[in-house]
Amino acid sequence: MDKIKAVVYGAGTIGQDIARFMLDKGVVITDAIDIENVGEDLGSVLDIERDLNVEIREDADAVLDETGADIAVVAVATKMENVGPHIEKCLEAGLNVITSSEEASYPWSTAPGITAKLDRVARENGVTVTGSGMQDLFWANLVTALTGASQEIDSVEGRLSVNVDELGEMVADFYAVGRDEDEIREMIEAGEDFPLGDEVDFLFMDLENQISALGLTTKSFNKVVEPITLDKDIESKALGEKIPAGDLIGLDITFEVETQEGIMFEGTQTAKVYQEGDEDYNEWVIKGEPDIHMRNENPPTLLGTSTQIVNRIPDVINAKSGYVTIDQLPMLKCKVRSLEHYLE
Amino acid sequence: MDKIKAVVYGAGTIGQDIARFMLDKGVVITDAIDIENVGEDLGSVLDIERDLNVEIREDADAVLDETGADIAVVAVATKMENVGPHIEKCLEAGLNVITSSEEASYPWSTAPGITAKLDRVARENGVTVTGSGMQDLFWANLVTALTGASQEIDSVEGRLSVNVDELGEMVADFYAVGRDEDEIREMIEAGEDFPLGDEVDFLFMDLENQISALGLTTKSFNKVVEPITLDKDIESKALGEKIPAGDLIGLDITFEVETQEGIMFEGTQTAKVYQEGDEDYNEWVIKGEPDIHMRNENPPTLLGTSTQIVNRIPDVINAKSGYVTIDQLPMLKCKVRSLEHYLE
Repeated sequence: MDKIKAVVYGAGTIGQDIARFMLDKGVVITDAIDIENVGEDLGSVLDIERDLNVEIREDADAVLDETGADIAVVAVATKMENVGPHIEKCLEAGLNVITSSEEASYPWSTAPGITAKLDRVARENGVTVTGSGMQDLFWANLVTALTGASQEIDSVEGRLSVNVDELGEMVADFYAVGRDEDEIREMIEAGEDFPLGDEVDFLFMDLENQISALGLTTKSFNKVVEPITLDKDIESKALGEKIPAGDLIGLDITFEVETQEGIMFEGTQTAKVYQEGDEDYNEWVIKGEPDIHMRNENPPTLLGTSTQIVNRIPDVINAKSGYVTIDQLPMLKCKVRSLEHYLE
Repeated sequence: MDKIKAVVYGAGTIGQDIARFMLDKGVVITDAIDIENVGEDLGSVLDIERDLNVEIREDADAVLDETGADIAVVAVATKMENVGPHIEKCLEAGLNVITSSEEASYPWSTAPGITAKLDRVARENGVTVTGSGMQDLFWANLVTALTGASQEIDSVEGRLSVNVDELGEMVADFYAVGRDEDEIREMIEAGEDFPLGDEVDFLFMDLENQISALGLTTKSFNKVVEPITLDKDIESKALGEKIPAGDLIGLDITFEVETQEGIMFEGTQTAKVYQEGDEDYNEWVIKGEPDIHMRNENPPTLLGTSTQIVNRIPDVINAKSGYVTIDQLPMLKCKVRSLEHYLE
């Protein structure tokens, strides 16, 4: 059985985790693309004990022109408008693509033009593009699976929390961490969209995945942004400074999606600087006949993106051509053997 | 699109719930088989506001000889040795079968002979047989899905609790409720197998489903039965009497399954008379890289068997011929439309 050959397209923190996990599961990494560490061997960047004889190169076109890989793992940006051109290059080179871009997990509503284009290019080249990551299981497919015990669904309601202090200064800025409450409330009223920058409404994508998985159709949606403050000072690792009492430690962002079929989907994503005792969690309640409740305590928010993307690689190669969102793939599960054993 | 036609084979509590849910999802019930309420219309037994013009009949052979149904829903017994002959009749009549028999959800280890026979008969008749119920999602496939975030698994460990007081006197007897602790400990030491009677080690089936889903192979297993007592009297609804302090209110049964691949599966099923404040739950921990934790609070233990079986009906009809266990079926999800819309 042939090994799976992969291009690491983006060798930052997530790209490096994915690369290490791929190597552990028998994938041959043939090429690496990044604008940092150019000229170095990927093995030394990964801090593993061997050379991979894969030089990190900057010229994506040249790499893709020459590569014999089956799939590119694209971890370069969050938004479709930023990651789209990179994905398109890979598809045109005849590579399947899996990307950690959060918008890519269900981009049909927020970026229909780019998505349709990628879908067409993928079909023309007989390959597949999928966005996966932490959301694949915990915020989308595990919830869809849970509806398997529902005779009737009135609503699906979720809540998840992540620690922006673990996500670096840029992400903290996107969630207005350390900003003045009145200023941010004025910005919200004036129609400024939060989170800022290259950060997307990832939970909206997850709800859209659930809606698609159940064969439902989105009718309308509403988004509410609520600043989070504390009545005491708190140290922020991401900012490298103290946030004074009353200033923002993050945001609660709530989406309410109404479907044509009348089933409501609602989710709140909390992104804030954690205090002692705070932990990541996600919690889902399905109301209907019967009511169902699931809670994942301290889920692997950071590592889970890489583990799920690696477990998805054979599913993406096996899938039909085109833009295939995670709700259309088989149930995600751990690939306990080398990944080539799961190719059809 | 043609409606799905079903035979209700066993019209007790679970069969009745399934029948009501099937009617709500557009299934045409063509026949009903039971040894109770013979001669009555199924509609009056279901307490719905219309006649179904389906007479409950006792002679299964005669019903199956005449029926034009696609599938039989068999809810007559827990153990394969008891339910097997009923399933075989249905398969020979060219009907697909879904059964609530708990052993049927993974019977290859505990009843290989009967299962192989049913597999052969199903293939010969071009139909499928599957065992589903509460375990489908909560104790098997949801856990398998959760491994989708695992790079490496050391062990899968679960714990679930059910209230025998809700399951009637017979089931309470199977779990030695109200019996003397010393007597039961002696029976356990003497090699008596618990639970007694027509009750199976359902959690063992669930672990076997998970093992099968991941492509692993069982090497050995160990079972430990532990009596549960209280230091005060407690009223038992199932027994209709008080259980004195020190006598059994139920059993903890733990399974440890070792796989050839070295991954351990461990589960404890608690079946006891609940005190005020006790609730059903199930909780799963996957140890490895990373650790993962999921808890379902107050899951729909009784209704969930019927809802999951009904949502599985199209999957069973769509599946390849033979004995197809739930780990081989697509991800279970709510069928929000009439069931015929999900036929391939």
